[in-house]
Amino acid sequence: MTAKLYCFGESGNAYKAALTMALAGYDWAPLWVDFFHGASRSADFLAINEMGEAPVFVEGDLTLTQSCVIQLHVAEKTGKFLDGDRNEILRWLFWDGQKGSGQQGALRFLMNFVPEEKRPAEAIKWLSGRVMTALGVLDRHLEGRNWVTGDAPTLADLACCGYLYYPEPWGFDRKALPHIDRWLDRIAALPGWKHPYDLMPGNPSDRA
Amino acid sequence: MTAKLYCFGESGNAYKAALTMALAGYDWAPLWVDFFHGASRSADFLAINEMGEAPVFVEGDLTLTQSCVIQLHVAEKTGKFLDGDRNEILRWLFWDGQKGSGQQGALRFLMNFVPEEKRPAEAIKWLSGRVMTALGVLDRHLEGRNWVTGDAPTLADLACCGYLYYPEPWGFDRKALPHIDRWLDRIAALPGWKHPYDLMPGNPSDRA
Repeated sequence: MTAKLYCFGESGNAYKAALTMALAGYDWAPLWVDFFHGASRSADFLAINEMGEAPVFVEGDLTLTQSCVIQLHVAEKTGKFLDGDRNEILRWLFWDGQKGSGQQGALRFLMNFVPEEKRPAEAIKWLSGRVMTALGVLDRHLEGRNWVTGDAPTLADLACCGYLYYPEPWGFDRKALPHIDRWLDRIAALPGWKHPYDLMPGNPSDRA
Repeated sequence: MTAKLYCFGESGNAYKAALTMALAGYDWAPLWVDFFHGASRSADFLAINEMGEAPVFVEGDLTLTQSCVIQLHVAEKTGKFLDGDRNEILRWLFWDGQKGSGQQGALRFLMNFVPEEKRPAEAIKWLSGRVMTALGVLDRHLEGRNWVTGDAPTLADLACCGYLYYPEPWGFDRKALPHIDRWLDRIAALPGWKHPYDLMPGNPSDRA
């Protein structure tokens, strides 16, 4: 049975789930959510996910939301990307939700997808400070490590990289964070890796 | 063996872990972190948690960070607060980290613990919008339900309430969110429940 993922290319949270499925060789197909025209807040979508968020994963009778929950389901079903200390993996998944992808996605949105005249400069400044502090934590953690936890790529890697391959500018400079930079190269070298805009439908050029 | 929780009363994230232990009858004791004098960013603390965050849980050789990871450990060890659909519980834990406690804590900090002349008004406005939208999701979810997931209190309840008992004003009005209001009363009626300032050392009056 082919799983469906409600998603859109611009969503790093959806990418976390899609990338996990792609690298695990999961049987799945994307279903585009027209986020930029409010589809994720429509009554139809809220009936699937009351949180009004993508991604949503549907496999037969099973519906899952929250990117990390989908990642855990795929990993448990395939036996992949859970090597090592489960608590360490979970700790980085929760960190990513609050301090990593969770904040990066909002910052990138404000700096790229809100009309320029409506961008809240002070909110962007405040959020940037938080995002960069958190990226510093990740960069220091990756010093001397190949992967976020243990000796093999796990869900922790596939979560924390969620927004870090996008080309839109939001202040993230790979070269200034050398351990993150090399770690992103390692993830991108995994068999089956794809860029978010190649893995899911929808990207900014559709709206240009 | 008594577990130690590095925590401080003002932290709703620490409260999530402390409340779970209190209600589960866990053998634990708090260790105060002097957050407001930078203790969580000290070299000593970073050696325990490189993320520079409380809470940190230490039980013999086991050190755990991230409130939800601590909650899961306590729940699994005691067999409590995990009734029902595990994916549903996890989904609300992740939601709380990103959209619930994760944002509420930042907003309450900006509105109460940053000196008045330094408060970033536009950032507060932007964040308030996000926080209130998310609380609306939780309030609608709780309509017709006693607990966040299933028929019994679970970790999902003990996570999502993390910042909702504090007296400091951050725009949260219980009476305007009637389903949350009644749910908070139900949690507070559980045997062993305590207010965060009664469960952990440290509260704003210490610094008055």
